[in-house]
Amino acid sequence: MDRVLQYIEKNQSRFLEELKEFLRIPSVSNNAENKRDVLRCAHYVVDQLRQIGMQQVEIFPTSGHPIVYGEWLGAQGQPTVLFYGHYDVQPVDPLDLWTSGPFEPTIRNGEIFARGSADDKGQVIMNLKGVESHLKSQGKLPINIKFLIEGEEEVGSANLDEFIASHKELLKADVVLISDTPMFDRGVPSICYGLRGLVYFQIDLKGTDSDLHSGSFGGTVINPNFALAQMIASLKNPDGQITIPGFYDDVQPMSPSEKVELSRLPFDPEKYRKSLGAPALFGEKGYNPLEQIWVRPTLEVNGICGGFIGEGAKTVIPAKAMAKISMRLVPNQDPERIANLFEAHIRRIAPSAVELTVTRMHGGKAWVAPIDHPAIQAASRAYEKGFGKRPVFVREGGSIPVVATFAEILGLPSVLMGIGLPDENAHAPNEKLDLYNFRYGIITSAHFFQEMAQ
Amino acid sequence: MDRVLQYIEKNQSRFLEELKEFLRIPSVSNNAENKRDVLRCAHYVVDQLRQIGMQQVEIFPTSGHPIVYGEWLGAQGQPTVLFYGHYDVQPVDPLDLWTSGPFEPTIRNGEIFARGSADDKGQVIMNLKGVESHLKSQGKLPINIKFLIEGEEEVGSANLDEFIASHKELLKADVVLISDTPMFDRGVPSICYGLRGLVYFQIDLKGTDSDLHSGSFGGTVINPNFALAQMIASLKNPDGQITIPGFYDDVQPMSPSEKVELSRLPFDPEKYRKSLGAPALFGEKGYNPLEQIWVRPTLEVNGICGGFIGEGAKTVIPAKAMAKISMRLVPNQDPERIANLFEAHIRRIAPSAVELTVTRMHGGKAWVAPIDHPAIQAASRAYEKGFGKRPVFVREGGSIPVVATFAEILGLPSVLMGIGLPDENAHAPNEKLDLYNFRYGIITSAHFFQEMAQ
Repeated sequence: MDRVLQYIEKNQSRFLEELKEFLRIPSVSNNAENKRDVLRCAHYVVDQLRQIGMQQVEIFPTSGHPIVYGEWLGAQGQPTVLFYGHYDVQPVDPLDLWTSGPFEPTIRNGEIFARGSADDKGQVIMNLKGVESHLKSQGKLPINIKFLIEGEEEVGSANLDEFIASHKELLKADVVLISDTPMFDRGVPSICYGLRGLVYFQIDLKGTDSDLHSGSFGGTVINPNFALAQMIASLKNPDGQITIPGFYDDVQPMSPSEKVELSRLPFDPEKYRKSLGAPALFGEKGYNPLEQIWVRPTLEVNGICGGFIGEGAKTVIPAKAMAKISMRLVPNQDPERIANLFEAHIRRIAPSAVELTVTRMHGGKAWVAPIDHPAIQAASRAYEKGFGKRPVFVREGGSIPVVATFAEILGLPSVLMGIGLPDENAHAPNEKLDLYNFRYGIITSAHFFQEMAQ
Repeated sequence: MDRVLQYIEKNQSRFLEELKEFLRIPSVSNNAENKRDVLRCAHYVVDQLRQIGMQQVEIFPTSGHPIVYGEWLGAQGQPTVLFYGHYDVQPVDPLDLWTSGPFEPTIRNGEIFARGSADDKGQVIMNLKGVESHLKSQGKLPINIKFLIEGEEEVGSANLDEFIASHKELLKADVVLISDTPMFDRGVPSICYGLRGLVYFQIDLKGTDSDLHSGSFGGTVINPNFALAQMIASLKNPDGQITIPGFYDDVQPMSPSEKVELSRLPFDPEKYRKSLGAPALFGEKGYNPLEQIWVRPTLEVNGICGGFIGEGAKTVIPAKAMAKISMRLVPNQDPERIANLFEAHIRRIAPSAVELTVTRMHGGKAWVAPIDHPAIQAASRAYEKGFGKRPVFVREGGSIPVVATFAEILGLPSVLMGIGLPDENAHAPNEKLDLYNFRYGIITSAHFFQEMAQ
């Protein structure tokens, strides 16, 4: 490993320049205007894979954004790691809250600011460079590697399942490696062994054919804004529990040993509250914040809109109102079943004086892994060598639906070796990546491939 | 009156052309881009007043749009009528729903379509022409007249109260005449003897400093969209009654004779429902739709907004949410008291996990007139002569705050002689005015001035 580590040391500033190139491409997958940028970004990944020494590199078009694949299979008799990541990024709105341009990577105080820096371009580059450092310094890797890097993670990976299902032979491997999760805290390397699932809905209400004058008509018709507020408000009780019948039926509680692990983590609710700028924390009664994020399902109103929202006053009763509502799921909640429960409940509580349209959007299963799996143990040793610390075992409140897909379609376990930090503003303005972690993330990645060898 | 009526007959098509000229001016008072158009419209009114024979015409600048004044005081010993109207109009959005341009007056099926045709330019012109027909055919009016025509009615008449208060001598009169209300129905001339008042608020909630990833943080912080929905939902009980403590304290119930009058009106709830395209009517239990609009206060969410409202899905917990909430008031609710009750209640029910900002916007008192007042009786006779039918006595759900102002500052009663129709889309696309009513509105106006003479 010495030559590998020396290579990493020597090429650090080039690695950073390449990260910047990657971050400059505005690969916003949910915006039709950025379609060509997303394609350009896919080709950037292709070039990277060729450059780091992959033997075979391919770009697979889909009905949405392309999937990039690359492989190096020169380590006979050794296990094969399938690396999964994504090159697409979240939208940048609200743009005026960014201190520097979202696609103008800028370094301030040891952090690089740009959309995608933490989620997930920075973490993709770390693993590319971990592989490169083996291949370029030794001429070989200790294990076999396959890269699967998609461009639709931020829009629900609409074409990935089908691609995986129809490329089982190509993607054959022993374990999946994913770097798309944060560490528990700065200086606390973490292996994520659980993720929440997701179901996402749009609800539209229509009251009347046109907006109405609130004086001339107010009092005789339902106000869709009001009806929507009432429906939403009824979805939780005052303790923050979701009131949809059957919603909690299949929720898997934490094991006693998990509870012990969780209680040992260095978590300060007051520091957490301050970091968010929240006047107070608020969550389901009877659970602490880590439990609320990791092992309890949630329901959120991601967006709501109706009527006059400009400056000033307009005395209107809107014809329509809309809400985007999503639920985070935990093991063993089935997204299909929860979506059915939600839809049936929403239809039941919608007043008869409005027309209701319910649209199901993307979703995914929650996931939990056995901590004693050899690949997870290899990741643990790699972290210890990279960051000089044994990692903690954590869960993540977000969803990486592809983890469930790998388990179901390919029968593969996943190792979630995240190098992000929880305050790096993934999905928010001023997304950033810690450059210390970028450096030691590359080293940890290189160690992981070594530790995976038999 | 014969010569007056002959004059009206003879000049009908010119009157219509002058209405069109008036309607072509885009005097949208809430849009800074239209400021010069609003001024041009004020000068059009000045020219009209001179042309119909006013002895003194003046334009009074304000910090917003100007007020136009004109008078003819040649009827010694006779009462003075102060006519109030407005030359400004509502915004035209959404423009794509207009069949013909909002400022290209177009006649289809005996109706003229343009923004302002019903509210209020058409009704202003009718009264100008009623006066002109006396002066030009007889050389005099049976009573004295003062015209007060403002350009800020659609933005809350911000400068009118001060103008009236500082021009009490100029505006001295016996009665105010206002034509800015609809008839009860086609062929049912109506005198409006009651209006609702208004208070209007904006509510802003802030949960955290930035939008948050709903996976990584969901479960530990309040969602401002959700908190807003809960606050709004709690403002009414399931019977549609407003739950703000003290809200109904001062509500003046209908008298038994008013109830009898109301029950005689030709109102078909099913026809009303269909005209709105509503699946069902919805209002406060225990009251019929006319009572709900005329004599019961309401609370409406005029606008609501927070989080991701674009196409597709974004898994975000918004940092902020906003709602515009207004209340229609009835006699004897005091807007100041109701605004205080609302604000105190909103502050009480806001969760401690959000920062709340409450902004008071414009408001106005409700109003009700004694039906047996001589001027109202004169209007009743004028309608009977003009339209060949005794008018009905109705109320209006909207607000004309200036009616309260005339009562409070000048001590004057108002006569609301409306010539619009309830389906003429005031404040909505495809605003229109019935040309039959335009013709007989002018005749009725001319009769009113005659009937007011002693």
